[in-house]
Amino acid sequence: MPLVRIDLIEGTSEAYRTKVGEIVYQTLVDVLKVPEHDHFHVITEHPKGGLPFDRNYLGIHRSDACIFFQITLLSGRSVELKQSFYKTLVDRLHEEVKLRKEDAFINLVEVPKENWSFGNGEAQYVTTVS
Amino acid sequence: MPLVRIDLIEGTSEAYRTKVGEIVYQTLVDVLKVPEHDHFHVITEHPKGGLPFDRNYLGIHRSDACIFFQITLLSGRSVELKQSFYKTLVDRLHEEVKLRKEDAFINLVEVPKENWSFGNGEAQYVTTVS
Amino acid sequence: MPLVRIDLIEGTSEAYRTKVGEIVYQTLVDVLKVPEHDHFHVITEHPKGGLPFDRNYLGIHRSDACIFFQITLLSGRSVELKQSFYKTLVDRLHEEVKLRKEDAFINLVEVPKENWSFGNGEAQYVTTVS
Repeated sequence: MPLVRIDLIEGTSEAYRTKVGEIVYQTLVDVLKVPEHDHFHVITEHPKGGLPFDRNYLGIHRSDACIFFQITLLSGRSVELKQSFYKTLVDRLHEEVKLRKEDAFINLVEVPKENWSFGNGEAQYVTTVS
Repeated sequence: MPLVRIDLIEGTSEAYRTKVGEIVYQTLVDVLKVPEHDHFHVITEHPKGGLPFDRNYLGIHRSDACIFFQITLLSGRSVELKQSFYKTLVDRLHEEVKLRKEDAFINLVEVPKENWSFGNGEAQYVTTVS
Repeated sequence: MPLVRIDLIEGTSEAYRTKVGEIVYQTLVDVLKVPEHDHFHVITEHPKGGLPFDRNYLGIHRSDACIFFQITLLSGRSVELKQSFYKTLVDRLHEEVKLRKEDAFINLVEVPKENWSFGNGEAQYVTTVS
């Protein structure tokens, strides 16, 4: 159910962006126990002027490679699980696509199960998840 | 008050996208009783690589025509009303623009009335809706 | 912590859009007491057909210059503070970039402190804000 918005400055390859998305998806599955195949992303490149952000907020030194992840998902995960998700996601992005760990900005938005329809006009989580 | 984000793969006509938006607006009015003329949409086309999604999650077979609808609206609608909204929206999209019913992905985000300003720097729903 | 999405019709200058973003940032700091340097924006221009909105909802006469602001931020501000934010933001946009006061549409989405990671895979507000 997560709807993942990935925003970054233009100039990366499609292969890179695809890989970034796959890492997010797999980490959602592995850490937050999102169902397999629950993969819905919007990946948008922006000219540099369209993605202004502070380079040093909280003492974290960000570069032009910084990626914003805004993930709308089913509510209810614990603080500890969210912390584990952030750490694992950033570790994997660093290992697999060499993203600097400073360059991942993540925000979660949580909504209840009746706020999702995956097709056919049904609220699948109301009827299939109790 | 809904702010509707519509994301889809590029290649459709502007007339098609306009019609899709109008159907969403009218269904919000008819089913969720959103006020008439409360119509604020962001419709974005993406290259195919910018809208990756699973083609079979929950056994629903999606095509490249799949449309993501993320609708931020005033909180408080019942589960039943949301279910009716999904069904009516998808039925109408199918009837009026031939969208396959599998190809509508819908997510609602709910916020309270003081989280909206429709212009002039006022929180109109705080002062005009009790 | 706010993640600010700014959507507007294409045709403005980058300097204008940059200034609009700076005004939003400064007003968040001044009125909502967001930390200084907490500045993360996504500014997107759209063809006119990609930003359909009602020109008269609630009797407010909007023009093609209308800007949508969707701001995801830490929950907890009072209604009065949000009202003050809307008013100050719109007053400043009017004074500093001549935006008509009718042409600012604002929506807030609130999330708890554990829903943010500003880099390094940590949930900084869980550990640094109590």
